[in-house]
Amino acid sequence: MKKNKVIILKDLPKFALNSACFTTADRPVKEPMLGEVLIKVKLISIDAANRAWLNGQTYRPAVSVGDIMPAYGIGEVVKSRSKNLNKGDLVSGELEWSEYTTKPASFLKKADGNYNLTDLLTYKGIAGLTAYHGLLNIAKIEPKETVLVSTAAGSVGIFACQIARILGCKVIGLSSSDEKCDWVEKNLGINKCINYKGENFSKTLKEICPEGIDVYFDNVGGNLLEQTLYRMRLKGRVVCCGVISQYDQDTTTSPKNIPGVIVTKRLKLEGFIVMDFQKENFKALEDLSKWFEAGQLKVFTEEYKGLDSAPLALINLLKGKNLGKTIIKI
Amino acid sequence: MKKNKVIILKDLPKFALNSACFTTADRPVKEPMLGEVLIKVKLISIDAANRAWLNGQTYRPAVSVGDIMPAYGIGEVVKSRSKNLNKGDLVSGELEWSEYTTKPASFLKKADGNYNLTDLLTYKGIAGLTAYHGLLNIAKIEPKETVLVSTAAGSVGIFACQIARILGCKVIGLSSSDEKCDWVEKNLGINKCINYKGENFSKTLKEICPEGIDVYFDNVGGNLLEQTLYRMRLKGRVVCCGVISQYDQDTTTSPKNIPGVIVTKRLKLEGFIVMDFQKENFKALEDLSKWFEAGQLKVFTEEYKGLDSAPLALINLLKGKNLGKTIIKI
Repeated sequence: MKKNKVIILKDLPKFALNSACFTTADRPVKEPMLGEVLIKVKLISIDAANRAWLNGQTYRPAVSVGDIMPAYGIGEVVKSRSKNLNKGDLVSGELEWSEYTTKPASFLKKADGNYNLTDLLTYKGIAGLTAYHGLLNIAKIEPKETVLVSTAAGSVGIFACQIARILGCKVIGLSSSDEKCDWVEKNLGINKCINYKGENFSKTLKEICPEGIDVYFDNVGGNLLEQTLYRMRLKGRVVCCGVISQYDQDTTTSPKNIPGVIVTKRLKLEGFIVMDFQKENFKALEDLSKWFEAGQLKVFTEEYKGLDSAPLALINLLKGKNLGKTIIKI
Repeated sequence: MKKNKVIILKDLPKFALNSACFTTADRPVKEPMLGEVLIKVKLISIDAANRAWLNGQTYRPAVSVGDIMPAYGIGEVVKSRSKNLNKGDLVSGELEWSEYTTKPASFLKKADGNYNLTDLLTYKGIAGLTAYHGLLNIAKIEPKETVLVSTAAGSVGIFACQIARILGCKVIGLSSSDEKCDWVEKNLGINKCINYKGENFSKTLKEICPEGIDVYFDNVGGNLLEQTLYRMRLKGRVVCCGVISQYDQDTTTSPKNIPGVIVTKRLKLEGFIVMDFQKENFKALEDLSKWFEAGQLKVFTEEYKGLDSAPLALINLLKGKNLGKTIIKI
């Protein structure tokens, strides 16, 4: 029987995720049962949410010690026992950190038409769609509004910055170093990117958005959200997309004065996950593809080679070392 | 010149508001200038928000030491230098803890038609309208939804409970003692009222709302909000109306795991104040009056006599001693 290399969660991280939390193993390839397909994994998406899954139940059950690490990815069907998928089909969905995985066909989405593997994991994948739905279906941004995007150099942030710019907003990015801010300003064409770890961040934010912030696309939570709330305009909207500041610690730090500031500024904070907007995906993919083909929306990736690099890729993402969407090519 | 008794903020409270924070003084009646009217104060509304105004700027400037304590109220115009108001008119608006006050006519709303002074400060006033707009224009409640109302025996809570009941929701109230819970269940006709200071509150809440909470009408914030967030259904809505748990302390306690729980449960937290919905007041007053006249919506007041009772009335409200809307009759 064919061997299947997999990466298993060996220990739960106490604070920051580290490579000792994972171990590699060989497992037999699991034959598909009726309705299932066997998939050869091609690309793995590395997402901050992967880390959140280790901390407990979120919108999916927690990952437990001994589990093969789950992850969104793209693969090719190599054996099918489903009427809906054939050998050779390219599929996306929740796969695993493994060479092969066996999944019910109903859990997977078939890639139609002309496709490019990287596109499916970037602007046509959860990163691009998350940014799109957060801005258009949660915040409902309008031209000329001031939109602040956290993790501006990250998987979702690069798309949020560009989409808000394409739609005619004033866009301010936030990133964790001067170098990343330079990269964002140079590559994403937005008005400004601010190093939120820099001195006088709060003062700089005020100077750059004297009118206040209409929409904050929040991937970070914690202290950064707290500082931002005080710069929101009356009736501002906060898109609650992720909480990357909190995943690598054992206690959570909430912004102070919640819900006080929500009342006095009449703010709206709304959480979402990309899977909530399946019905809106057709229009979203149409828009994203149009912008991509017109050269308005650019894709930036941080690519790693080989399954073994997955733990490091996730650790680096959590440390903010990536510029663009992190992808593992197998 | 006629004397005008007023109550002045003498000291800012450090923690809990106490009567030593206020002092009574005689001030001359201020003659109205062009566009202003002189008002004889008839009723003063005592609201938790009055306490928040002492802690800093909210949706209005902070009240400072030396200021006559501002408050919403009803008065009669005794002298007018405005074309829009005449002597004898009854007006509502932000008045003061005083026998007389002089205000620009444009800051006031004239009471039209047949009126009853108490009605104007209860179901036709900020208490009734706040409950109405929070449930209908923020949460947009639907029949059969589970609606949880904090401070169920309070000014706004009594109306929120009844409106949600009238609109066909399952209504659960929260109050701070078994006696108040009994009063709420007996008088407001809702499904259940839970003492949130009682043992096993969290367990009781779960037992009574096994389906989870669709809408939480939050007047409290703090730890109670934290416990409630974990009982919200997916895509639940939190109406952020006030933060009474926070006003009498010098630091603020935010619920833990914000915005983490907002993301995973896809919640919406939205703040508002009643003045945001002036345009919707016509419809609101029509509905509230219809329900009142049909005997579906009842008014409960905690009445105090004389201006001197205002500090105690506010202190008692902050301690949760009131059943219904607190009113000072002068």
